[in-house]
Amino acid sequence: MHDLIAKLLVPGFENPLLRRQHDSAVFTVGQEHLAFTTDSYVVRPIVFPGGDLGSLAVHGTVNDLAMAGARPLYLSAGMIIEEGLPMETLRAIVTSMRAAADACGVQIVTGDTKVVDKGKGDGLFINTAGVGVIGHGLNIHPESIRPGDAILVNGDLGRHGMAIMAVREGLEFESSIESDSAPVWPIVQALLEGGIEVHCLRDITRGGLTSVLNEISAASDRILQVDESLIPVRPDVRAACEILGFDPLQVACEGRFAAFVPGEQAPAAMEIMRKFPHGQGACRVGEVTSHPGSRVLLKSIIGATRILDMSSGEQLPRIC
Amino acid sequence: MHDLIAKLLVPGFENPLLRRQHDSAVFTVGQEHLAFTTDSYVVRPIVFPGGDLGSLAVHGTVNDLAMAGARPLYLSAGMIIEEGLPMETLRAIVTSMRAAADACGVQIVTGDTKVVDKGKGDGLFINTAGVGVIGHGLNIHPESIRPGDAILVNGDLGRHGMAIMAVREGLEFESSIESDSAPVWPIVQALLEGGIEVHCLRDITRGGLTSVLNEISAASDRILQVDESLIPVRPDVRAACEILGFDPLQVACEGRFAAFVPGEQAPAAMEIMRKFPHGQGACRVGEVTSHPGSRVLLKSIIGATRILDMSSGEQLPRIC
Repeated sequence: MHDLIAKLLVPGFENPLLRRQHDSAVFTVGQEHLAFTTDSYVVRPIVFPGGDLGSLAVHGTVNDLAMAGARPLYLSAGMIIEEGLPMETLRAIVTSMRAAADACGVQIVTGDTKVVDKGKGDGLFINTAGVGVIGHGLNIHPESIRPGDAILVNGDLGRHGMAIMAVREGLEFESSIESDSAPVWPIVQALLEGGIEVHCLRDITRGGLTSVLNEISAASDRILQVDESLIPVRPDVRAACEILGFDPLQVACEGRFAAFVPGEQAPAAMEIMRKFPHGQGACRVGEVTSHPGSRVLLKSIIGATRILDMSSGEQLPRIC
Repeated sequence: MHDLIAKLLVPGFENPLLRRQHDSAVFTVGQEHLAFTTDSYVVRPIVFPGGDLGSLAVHGTVNDLAMAGARPLYLSAGMIIEEGLPMETLRAIVTSMRAAADACGVQIVTGDTKVVDKGKGDGLFINTAGVGVIGHGLNIHPESIRPGDAILVNGDLGRHGMAIMAVREGLEFESSIESDSAPVWPIVQALLEGGIEVHCLRDITRGGLTSVLNEISAASDRILQVDESLIPVRPDVRAACEILGFDPLQVACEGRFAAFVPGEQAPAAMEIMRKFPHGQGACRVGEVTSHPGSRVLLKSIIGATRILDMSSGEQLPRIC
């Protein structure tokens, strides 16, 4: 997917805003700095522990705006409905989108529905696009990261992906794994208002923390180092990963992000993050080294250091 | 579709911007008036005479912005790709989108791709959302139309829908019908800059002129009257409609719009429109009556007047 975007779409649409390859495009209209982003959501099953296609379609796009440090304002919703989708399902998803939007303080202001013949879709696909406004003067981007920056995450990793996979595989655990799907703008807003000099933000979605770190290392030409023992993964998530043969560092979240902040501000940043329900598990997992290069080093639990490689191929299809 | 949007989505997402049910949502950020819109494109075949899924996905969204009198600035592109789609097809569509965007003066600045398993999609669906900026002080909306307003169209109707249907049905005509798919912002811009007091604009897409007029009559509580002999339909389009059993007034266009302007400005407005390649066939097809009510009256070619009813059901599936 990363390859497809990089090799086909970015050169195909060639322009400076797209070339930045950030979660959101950022541009200026008059005096206003705006962020604009889109995502299509094709997750299966449509309803999963901790969320559904509707809430995910709101959280995912709101979070992409937040990663530019933008306050999410307005969303669009494009629905592609397969003929035969039960009306109650559509109604439930619309209700869920509405509730998620209300909780995020955004409005769904424009929409479109298309119906495709039976067998030409898969129940329901949703595209959301979002517009947000940027009120800070920072350049939140991989090019802003500096040696000594701390790499923070706002909580335990891998729950969204394993919640989906556990349902798909029919796995039962003592307590079910719920998706971490959640909006993270309130945390980002608090960091910015708290005077944290945020250098870069990236939501930990497809490809997990591994993809995020590798992409940012490549974009910034800085070797990153993380410590496996500091990366929070819940025991039940780790167990599910072991059973199904997944690496928790490659599993998608939908309410987690990595923040790159100056090392000396890391304690203050974590204190701010921990005030929020979706930031209680905030911790420092690594740092930006002074070495140029496109590589992520993982200090494993037993003390050895290895290269944390980007997985090839899509590990978990239709996770979002 | 109209019912589905009105009964499920509008109440479901309830907010004042969506309730206006215009082609674009219009809102203010700081000092800037912006328009925001979305559409998903599922047309089959992917390539048709006069365009393809890619150019259509650009024109359709750019035109929705233009209908708010907004200068289109930025687009997003969300692709839902069915596993097995030939890479050359995707490349051709991306190239076409890029060319259409360049021709419209917009940039595709953010994108997303999702791959779904074979049999769970239909080759390629594209969603585009668009952001535009409004530089005029008019309230371009059904509530602004007045008795005596002229109803103008920018050219002959029904070509997009019949181009698609002719291919699907394997019809051959002496000269093939090409889609009217085209961006209309340059024409709208010229009307605004030419001092035309534009009251309402609506692109003539799904449901054709019949839907547009009925929706605007209902939204403005004004009876509209149109004259069948003034509505331009090309002979080959009319013939194709007769063969296939369609009413040309209910067939979608993708580069045509209805403009409601003060009656006394109609000649000046048509003169402006005719300066553009996609406005050469501009003409006046009817007017807004002084009678309140939700009804469209059609004066037929033989002189009788009948009610022009909204068609029930979707006449032409997957036309855009």
